[in-house]
Amino acid sequence: MSQKLIGIDLGGTTIKFGILTLEGEVQEKWAIETNILEDGKHIVPDIVASLKHRLELYGLSKDDFVGIGMGSPGAVDREKKTVTGAFNLNWKDTQEVGSIIEQELGIPFAIDNDANVAALGERWVGAGDNNPDVIFVTLGTGVGGGIVADGNLIHGVAGAGGEIGHMIVEPENGFACTCGSYGCLETVASATGVVKVARLLAETYEGDSAIKAAIDNGEAVTSKDVFVAAEAGDSFADSVVEKVSFYLGLATANMANILNPDSIVIGGGVSAAGEFLRSRIEKFFLKFTFPQVKISTKIKIAELGNDAGIIGAASLASQIESK
Amino acid sequence: MSQKLIGIDLGGTTIKFGILTLEGEVQEKWAIETNILEDGKHIVPDIVASLKHRLELYGLSKDDFVGIGMGSPGAVDREKKTVTGAFNLNWKDTQEVGSIIEQELGIPFAIDNDANVAALGERWVGAGDNNPDVIFVTLGTGVGGGIVADGNLIHGVAGAGGEIGHMIVEPENGFACTCGSYGCLETVASATGVVKVARLLAETYEGDSAIKAAIDNGEAVTSKDVFVAAEAGDSFADSVVEKVSFYLGLATANMANILNPDSIVIGGGVSAAGEFLRSRIEKFFLKFTFPQVKISTKIKIAELGNDAGIIGAASLASQIESK
Repeated sequence: MSQKLIGIDLGGTTIKFGILTLEGEVQEKWAIETNILEDGKHIVPDIVASLKHRLELYGLSKDDFVGIGMGSPGAVDREKKTVTGAFNLNWKDTQEVGSIIEQELGIPFAIDNDANVAALGERWVGAGDNNPDVIFVTLGTGVGGGIVADGNLIHGVAGAGGEIGHMIVEPENGFACTCGSYGCLETVASATGVVKVARLLAETYEGDSAIKAAIDNGEAVTSKDVFVAAEAGDSFADSVVEKVSFYLGLATANMANILNPDSIVIGGGVSAAGEFLRSRIEKFFLKFTFPQVKISTKIKIAELGNDAGIIGAASLASQIESK
Repeated sequence: MSQKLIGIDLGGTTIKFGILTLEGEVQEKWAIETNILEDGKHIVPDIVASLKHRLELYGLSKDDFVGIGMGSPGAVDREKKTVTGAFNLNWKDTQEVGSIIEQELGIPFAIDNDANVAALGERWVGAGDNNPDVIFVTLGTGVGGGIVADGNLIHGVAGAGGEIGHMIVEPENGFACTCGSYGCLETVASATGVVKVARLLAETYEGDSAIKAAIDNGEAVTSKDVFVAAEAGDSFADSVVEKVSFYLGLATANMANILNPDSIVIGGGVSAAGEFLRSRIEKFFLKFTFPQVKISTKIKIAELGNDAGIIGAASLASQIESK
């Protein structure tokens, strides 16, 4: 009888692996470096070799597993189990992934994009409490996410579902986004977006602030610097956090107003600001939601941290069984 | 073998009934007046009597049907098949609906709220082309709708899913909404919302306009008057349509940016403005969506008109089979 799951979190620097129980408990985990040389042609063979080595090491065979799940950057074709345009892996053209791993390991394989997979992880054993309706928002270099509605990950007609970073929160005077639009959430709530908001507000702020001084002096300022200063009482930095929270409150409220999830879970590097950020977002969230949503949808900070990828990937593998 | 579906569209003025094939073709339809006297206590017995009478008339028995579906105003409990707080039916307290109809007719029964049911109808045989990802927006006295994502109607944790009218499109200087928030889509895109936008713009518009003159004279102006004048070349009325379309373009774009449906279908009384309104909404929709969504999600006008309710209700009944 099949008893375990394998989750793989494929990133541009490392590939993380986990062996998990069907309940989502991590039993073993390891990582290897991602070798992106020669158009990333070593990546899939390296994954196969590492899996074979570890299964032998642990005395496990293909019959011990329900499936292998993987989260990948780039555009994922879930049916063909291929990845296209994953630039941080040097995979410009379409790369066969699932067919090779299934053939070499003999275990069923499922793949989805990394933000969707992280959403599955947080929903399964993280802040989402395994509820059928959970939205995950990741605030990092960009803003991404995944939407689980009525128990299903929402992909949409062209696979662009869950692109929370491209919700428009500043329709008339927004910053330009890499997508071609103006005023996307990503332009004001990613790590670089927070700094953009700080630069804009610095133009008109009058008063003492180490952060404003650093910006005006042309020093490198990070989103973390802004949050740390705001928590320490810098009122300029606080006004930046207030504005970023306004945008996040508006975007999360609009998602909740139409989808009414049990929770919206905030993850990614910027979410390290924790309760300080969560409570600020919630203030605006409560301003912009209607009564039934206010009392039923919660704003939470992600719980899984570094393991979200392998846990979510294992969750994807667990769904193979039910098909 | 079960071959047909019954759809019931329960409204405050009439109750519409339809007998449909499993493919969604209306074979018979009829309507009765809604008797809301005595706390609406006659409504369910009237439905039962009308169904029994018609089935006898057509020589049909319970074995000819897969199920009965119903769309209802108010707060619907889909599990208990009850309705609470449907004020236009005089149902203030919880009303048993499904248990009585199932007992009297011996046919499985399913119920959902009227906006969700209309969404199912448009998705099934209307503008939605039976695609698994379709959003329906109804612009009438209020703004409502339903979201079908990955084949499922999205209800959310407290049943508030699909409340598209309460998306915030004017976060800082919006009109007050009946829900308690400010700047909801409903306050600017419902029939009365369009007139509110006209009144606001009339304050600063300089130039000749019969619509502006009517507003300034305190005459009754409807959203239809505004659209008719705009199409006839009244530039004040045109500026109102432009502003309303901006809000609808923003709201539909933000839904598409996160859910990437095949289409967003616009229905309800205000949508009678047809292609004139659709193309205006699309202009802003294309401004506010990111590239993958621009080329994959379409803005459409609803096709089913008056029959949407019975067709959607029959669609709900058709899903009983698959359980």
